[in-house]
Amino acid sequence: MLGASGYAGRELCALILRHPNLELQFATANEQRGTRMRVGGRELDLVGSDDANLGEADLVFSALPHGASKQWVARAREAGSRVVDLSADLRPGNGCDGIPYGLPELSREHLVDAPLVANPGCYPTAILVALAPLLRNGLVAADSAITIDAASGVTGAGNSPKRELLFGEVADDYRAYGTGNTHRHLNEMRVVAGALDSSVDLVFTPHLLPVPRGILATITVTLAAPLADVLAPWRDAYGNEPFVEIATEPPALRDVVHRNVVRISAQPLSGTRRPMLLVLSAIDNLVKGAAGQAVQNANLMLGLSETAGLPL
Amino acid sequence: MLGASGYAGRELCALILRHPNLELQFATANEQRGTRMRVGGRELDLVGSDDANLGEADLVFSALPHGASKQWVARAREAGSRVVDLSADLRPGNGCDGIPYGLPELSREHLVDAPLVANPGCYPTAILVALAPLLRNGLVAADSAITIDAASGVTGAGNSPKRELLFGEVADDYRAYGTGNTHRHLNEMRVVAGALDSSVDLVFTPHLLPVPRGILATITVTLAAPLADVLAPWRDAYGNEPFVEIATEPPALRDVVHRNVVRISAQPLSGTRRPMLLVLSAIDNLVKGAAGQAVQNANLMLGLSETAGLPL
Amino acid sequence: MLGASGYAGRELCALILRHPNLELQFATANEQRGTRMRVGGRELDLVGSDDANLGEADLVFSALPHGASKQWVARAREAGSRVVDLSADLRPGNGCDGIPYGLPELSREHLVDAPLVANPGCYPTAILVALAPLLRNGLVAADSAITIDAASGVTGAGNSPKRELLFGEVADDYRAYGTGNTHRHLNEMRVVAGALDSSVDLVFTPHLLPVPRGILATITVTLAAPLADVLAPWRDAYGNEPFVEIATEPPALRDVVHRNVVRISAQPLSGTRRPMLLVLSAIDNLVKGAAGQAVQNANLMLGLSETAGLPL
Amino acid sequence: MLGASGYAGRELCALILRHPNLELQFATANEQRGTRMRVGGRELDLVGSDDANLGEADLVFSALPHGASKQWVARAREAGSRVVDLSADLRPGNGCDGIPYGLPELSREHLVDAPLVANPGCYPTAILVALAPLLRNGLVAADSAITIDAASGVTGAGNSPKRELLFGEVADDYRAYGTGNTHRHLNEMRVVAGALDSSVDLVFTPHLLPVPRGILATITVTLAAPLADVLAPWRDAYGNEPFVEIATEPPALRDVVHRNVVRISAQPLSGTRRPMLLVLSAIDNLVKGAAGQAVQNANLMLGLSETAGLPL
Repeated sequence: MLGASGYAGRELCALILRHPNLELQFATANEQRGTRMRVGGRELDLVGSDDANLGEADLVFSALPHGASKQWVARAREAGSRVVDLSADLRPGNGCDGIPYGLPELSREHLVDAPLVANPGCYPTAILVALAPLLRNGLVAADSAITIDAASGVTGAGNSPKRELLFGEVADDYRAYGTGNTHRHLNEMRVVAGALDSSVDLVFTPHLLPVPRGILATITVTLAAPLADVLAPWRDAYGNEPFVEIATEPPALRDVVHRNVVRISAQPLSGTRRPMLLVLSAIDNLVKGAAGQAVQNANLMLGLSETAGLPL
Repeated sequence: MLGASGYAGRELCALILRHPNLELQFATANEQRGTRMRVGGRELDLVGSDDANLGEADLVFSALPHGASKQWVARAREAGSRVVDLSADLRPGNGCDGIPYGLPELSREHLVDAPLVANPGCYPTAILVALAPLLRNGLVAADSAITIDAASGVTGAGNSPKRELLFGEVADDYRAYGTGNTHRHLNEMRVVAGALDSSVDLVFTPHLLPVPRGILATITVTLAAPLADVLAPWRDAYGNEPFVEIATEPPALRDVVHRNVVRISAQPLSGTRRPMLLVLSAIDNLVKGAAGQAVQNANLMLGLSETAGLPL
Repeated sequence: MLGASGYAGRELCALILRHPNLELQFATANEQRGTRMRVGGRELDLVGSDDANLGEADLVFSALPHGASKQWVARAREAGSRVVDLSADLRPGNGCDGIPYGLPELSREHLVDAPLVANPGCYPTAILVALAPLLRNGLVAADSAITIDAASGVTGAGNSPKRELLFGEVADDYRAYGTGNTHRHLNEMRVVAGALDSSVDLVFTPHLLPVPRGILATITVTLAAPLADVLAPWRDAYGNEPFVEIATEPPALRDVVHRNVVRISAQPLSGTRRPMLLVLSAIDNLVKGAAGQAVQNANLMLGLSETAGLPL
Repeated sequence: MLGASGYAGRELCALILRHPNLELQFATANEQRGTRMRVGGRELDLVGSDDANLGEADLVFSALPHGASKQWVARAREAGSRVVDLSADLRPGNGCDGIPYGLPELSREHLVDAPLVANPGCYPTAILVALAPLLRNGLVAADSAITIDAASGVTGAGNSPKRELLFGEVADDYRAYGTGNTHRHLNEMRVVAGALDSSVDLVFTPHLLPVPRGILATITVTLAAPLADVLAPWRDAYGNEPFVEIATEPPALRDVVHRNVVRISAQPLSGTRRPMLLVLSAIDNLVKGAAGQAVQNANLMLGLSETAGLPL
């Protein structure tokens, strides 16, 4: 485990510690090297990245910061380990092609036994799992724009000390950020969504929520034609998925926090000239949006049960 | 003041108490009649509606519940008082036509010296002030849908004891409600917006935020043509408005709480086939979205300075 | 499971569902009978208490309201079931003597194989586990008063809809309640503490915290004599306890939520005429303070491993 | 105004801007020099401390950090300005004697027309105003310890970016800090309290609350003798004080935030061997605990009405 001291890293340590088939070999955190970190009821020794024996592990998780992760992924691969990279460095749309994108619900076949997987971003996880059944089946009106307003809990911004993330600044507040289609997750979504349907635009506005964790994406879609059975696309796509929940009521953060699931609802929008749909998708940004999905990918890469060690 | 014990009623009492030209004659709250309510540092006696001498006041504010307000408005009018009705009963789209709609930034001329004004809903205030400059000038693409995702603090739902509004339910949560274009504020917005531009649809999805107060509306618009100066429509419309702020950065709840303002930003959306705009609008739901706007309307109705007694 | 719809009831259902040796036979909730309740990813059918076959279960948990629980406990006993009663009805100081008090860390011997156990209150759990090693060994100055200021998350007050528990009332607030030594948990603590050392007074002031869950008790004790090793009383008493953590740093809610532990620190107070000690004790009010402790007791009553199914 | 960018500094700027008799000459913030800070609806230019013409102002407020303030206070005095120092540098117990301590409710006579005043800390304000009527009149049992458990909102810790103050760390949490009678405000309280009654000890345990602002002090006192009229000491001492509220119910943060008041209740503790009293005291740490009190002191120093510009 490289980069254990961030929010995703800590969550991942906790999942590894209670995973029936995984054992934590080392946990690195360069700034806190030599200290101990409490995870659940356990104390973990933190070491520097240089002190980790990368080859010792069958699989290395990297939750290092974007930019810094890439070189450590390369080192771990050279040392013979499989790697799940939680950073953005190797994801589609970031200049890296051909590396399997770890969204099992979309492309499980490329992940089984893979030596290296790019773990998706939190927003892309919530949004792409929700949109894929529409895009893949040509259900979205051609040349239309899909409007995605999403809100994320604060842990999505990491635990580096920044003034704008202080409790005194975030509490009682709510704001958009990365506006104007400029958020760095947008390109990741465009590449993956564009491969499914290249005729639609994505408009993405993220917001910062005064809650510790959770993402809700509110997605407005113009349909090519009205849907007879509004939930059918998701039932068809995900009926057997252990980590997708199709809901008849709008999902709330409360339904998904601390769980490795995407919870999705869909509902027609009344009173519009063209047929439109409201799709809502909720995840825990630290679980299905990061650490839980990383374990899910590791399970596939190592030939374990996909659900092993994951909180349903 | 009829209906003083709800969140909007209490806020309005506080504003009246420090208004230089208004004096509070009575404060009613049927369930709490005979008790005292603390407002700021003062104690107010609460009486029953039947015990209020409606004719004694030059102007009566009604913050009674929707449905119950209408009859009391009629009684106060009969008693010779001017009335600002904060309920939905007399607003456009609720079966009542011809009653001036108290959004001074849109139609001040109908409010000056008016005997009766329907105070707008909180969401409509944030959204209509933001949209009017686009709609009125034909800047929105014909036959397009405007997507409005809005989030409101909990006081927007009132202070009747309901399980889903308990701290233990709302804290750390976030969810959409009134989904599928079914929220009762939508009709109010459609009527007012439709009078400005009848060729566009509104898609409205409200959300419940775990904060005490504030509304942020995230509005995505398809434009008829790109705008050379993106803020020009708002500067032209509101350059002299005391209660509208045009911002170059996205507004946050923090910028507007406890203040009687609408704070608006606009920004082009990059990478879309058609020209699109992101408009963000923030208000305090209890001030500009209710009590502050009621005082603003009362000021106009009584020939006082429009800004008298209002927190800028 | 009687009384499944409150916060403790829901938490207990979740624990039972993932317990390796327990199976949930029924979940009652009279007001919501006929509806389904989501617990984690599962849906539970709620039935009325009258529809539950009490004899069908080896052990019945009652999380019914105080006052209402007693009669159902009697019925379940008559039907031949063992019972853990989470209400206050059968606890010491409430007029019921001789029923084993379910604080295993104090009196495990009375709980093993017991047919009926009164599950302690949340405040008493945090406070009595912290105080017992001092009281039992005569370490507290005779005739002194122990000052206990405690703060609890909102779920401690239950989920009945009350105005003072609305998000709009609790958020950003903090207050004492049940002041003047009047809280109903005080008698329970006095009886149990008095049996260990009858020469000291308890002064108890609870506070309402704007957090969903967790209790922190801040306890100030005047000592009979200075302690050479300040943590020794707790180490001696609880060195082998699976659910007690002795900490060298003050415990925080964050350390204990979602876990079945009491976390305790102790530290001398400098600059006082007489030797004084600060003891801090933290629990999750819904886990070690209610549902988790109920499972711990059930494990003992049924001869299972005491830690079975409990989140460490 | 020196040090305008911290929480207290910003609050003080806001108060100065709406004060009828004060005018803001400059606002310094060394790290943000050259930028603008939004205060309410206004934009303030921030300059470096070196760029401020200290002699230009009749009175200088310093909200500079502890340690750094002292030298700037000296410079401002040399330049001929009166000074209110909000830092701890010149307060009693910090090695500075003879400088008037700006708690008007205790010693107004030393503040009128004073050239330099040390503005009290937030905790000492809440606690000393509450305790003075007991201490001054010998009502506390000799050789007893007064137990003070206090909880403060996060702005009390300032707005420097520290990891432990991030929203993701503070939300849903509650913890004691500065435990064992080690908090730096304790000495300030001991000196001032000791001058009123030298026979009692203070035991002080502060806690960090997940709220933006407000302090509640829970004070347990052993009395020399029972009080016939429990509120009489405070009524006698503060009956005419504009900024002290004596309450019959326990005060809550909600009662005092955004207001320049100390709100105090007192109540006997039942069931103890010796007569004991529970005193609760609440303030807004940024108003009566910092900026509001600074203005109150400035009003006295400048011969203005003591209540001028202060939110009751």
